[in-house]
Amino acid sequence: MSARELVVLGTASQVPTRHRNHNGYLLRWDDQGILFDPGEGTQRQMQGAGVSAGGITRVCVTHFHGDHCLGLPGVIQRLSLDRVPHPVPVHFPAGGAEYFNRLRYASSFYETATVLPAPVTDGWSADLGAFTLTARRLVHSVEACGYQLVEPDSRRIVPELLAAHGVTGPAVGVLQRTGRLDLGDGRDVTLGQVSAPRPGQRFAFVMDTGLCDAVFALADRADLLCIEATFLNEDAALAAEVGHLTAAQAARVARECGVRRLVLTHFSQRYGQDEYEPDGRYLTEARAEFGGEIVLARDLMRVDVPPRVRVDA
Amino acid sequence: MSARELVVLGTASQVPTRHRNHNGYLLRWDDQGILFDPGEGTQRQMQGAGVSAGGITRVCVTHFHGDHCLGLPGVIQRLSLDRVPHPVPVHFPAGGAEYFNRLRYASSFYETATVLPAPVTDGWSADLGAFTLTARRLVHSVEACGYQLVEPDSRRIVPELLAAHGVTGPAVGVLQRTGRLDLGDGRDVTLGQVSAPRPGQRFAFVMDTGLCDAVFALADRADLLCIEATFLNEDAALAAEVGHLTAAQAARVARECGVRRLVLTHFSQRYGQDEYEPDGRYLTEARAEFGGEIVLARDLMRVDVPPRVRVDA
Repeated sequence: MSARELVVLGTASQVPTRHRNHNGYLLRWDDQGILFDPGEGTQRQMQGAGVSAGGITRVCVTHFHGDHCLGLPGVIQRLSLDRVPHPVPVHFPAGGAEYFNRLRYASSFYETATVLPAPVTDGWSADLGAFTLTARRLVHSVEACGYQLVEPDSRRIVPELLAAHGVTGPAVGVLQRTGRLDLGDGRDVTLGQVSAPRPGQRFAFVMDTGLCDAVFALADRADLLCIEATFLNEDAALAAEVGHLTAAQAARVARECGVRRLVLTHFSQRYGQDEYEPDGRYLTEARAEFGGEIVLARDLMRVDVPPRVRVDA
Repeated sequence: MSARELVVLGTASQVPTRHRNHNGYLLRWDDQGILFDPGEGTQRQMQGAGVSAGGITRVCVTHFHGDHCLGLPGVIQRLSLDRVPHPVPVHFPAGGAEYFNRLRYASSFYETATVLPAPVTDGWSADLGAFTLTARRLVHSVEACGYQLVEPDSRRIVPELLAAHGVTGPAVGVLQRTGRLDLGDGRDVTLGQVSAPRPGQRFAFVMDTGLCDAVFALADRADLLCIEATFLNEDAALAAEVGHLTAAQAARVARECGVRRLVLTHFSQRYGQDEYEPDGRYLTEARAEFGGEIVLARDLMRVDVPPRVRVDA
């Protein structure tokens, strides 16, 4: 089981189908679990995916249309029922605070868990230690934002370089902590001399939006991009009108942003209600724009964040 | 397809399982569709059961615990999305109005359907033409009520009696409309002479409650009783403490009230999480109290209202 993966909980747009629940995506990132857009039924989908409420450390809501947020009360209440001990921040577009407040206390429950409302506005960003989380305003019929998670670049120790400099045992720890080591013979060695760059990994989550600069900013160099692809080319004009993307547009974003693995989701039911596989044109039209890896999301699928690109010293 | 049946949409208590969604029950009664306790995911369960939003003519919520009402926003929004033309009254315990208001506008949507909030208090009753709907306060940790639907008694024309009195053709209609017919030979015939009693049918819906008089009043002579049976005998003390019924108590109610068909639901997960069939003791313990027909509810099951008892003239 990868420590960094996207657990897909639901993939329908607007209306659930037999095979597709409303939205829901849990990003497992080492010891963090970030739940994006819990649509109605997310609590039950978690059960199917083997995800417990305790595995959720943060929630990010892109906007307050029902298919992206009506599962929030169930998730919040489940945190309390399961006595989840850690506080759980919930991010959402600040303009939707009224909806958040209704969903938070949508029905009577015994509150034991700590939910921390953390509204975001365009450009909001927070250094959360393991990564920086950024929100950007998107273009939709209600205030909506996408999220980007960026792990800082760092360096990895290369054993061969340690050996070449004769650094062994506890000295390795000193070098890692202080960045420099006195070798005792008049020479010293720096961390840079025994390590190689380790590019941070990136994840982006882009839901309901028309194509805009913010989409490209969010998707920039994402190792994994989860993005709505509601419409096919034949409905491109409609997509623009109602603030949605086509599969081709989503794929073009992936190409221009250097995305490594592209997850398309939020398929419209208009192209074949209740099909386990979405209309074949989703893949064809995306493939025409993007040569990288394309995943058509299915409920309860797990998608790894691709392994790091190894950069030599 | 029976015109009077209970479509079971969900049967879990508190926490959904792989085989059991949160609560949800649609009573199809001729041209009416009364949705009881839409828990989270009801909208999607409707899809599985082949029930459309347009088939809902009324909603009855027993109380505002999440497993009985978190599907309300999805259902309400679906009424608008599907442009359901008829207004839909929603009943709920008056003390929970604040929760109803939050659920009604839990997220942003384009409202086209007409939802009519219709709060109820203990003893509330309304003559709705085809039947009388009554609510009674139950005993639970929050304000809760059960519902009873009573069709008025009437009479059915008996063809053999019509023939015996020589009433044929359009005269039958006159007799039905006016209750009396001049036979033109000095005699007349009354509706009573050519008809037999037709007892009205009854349905009762009893969710989370400790055993109390109101449960018996609601279940009185029900043709079909849908009732929670959360606990087994071994947890009877706990059941009383938290305001719930055991299967044996629910069955005792059925016996004492002359219920014809008993539907048990809302099974606790403690006796075997995620089993398609609930623990065998539910049936054994209920059977010890009630000799009539017992149905252990399963998701997407349909239960007919039993055929009328035929009363001869």
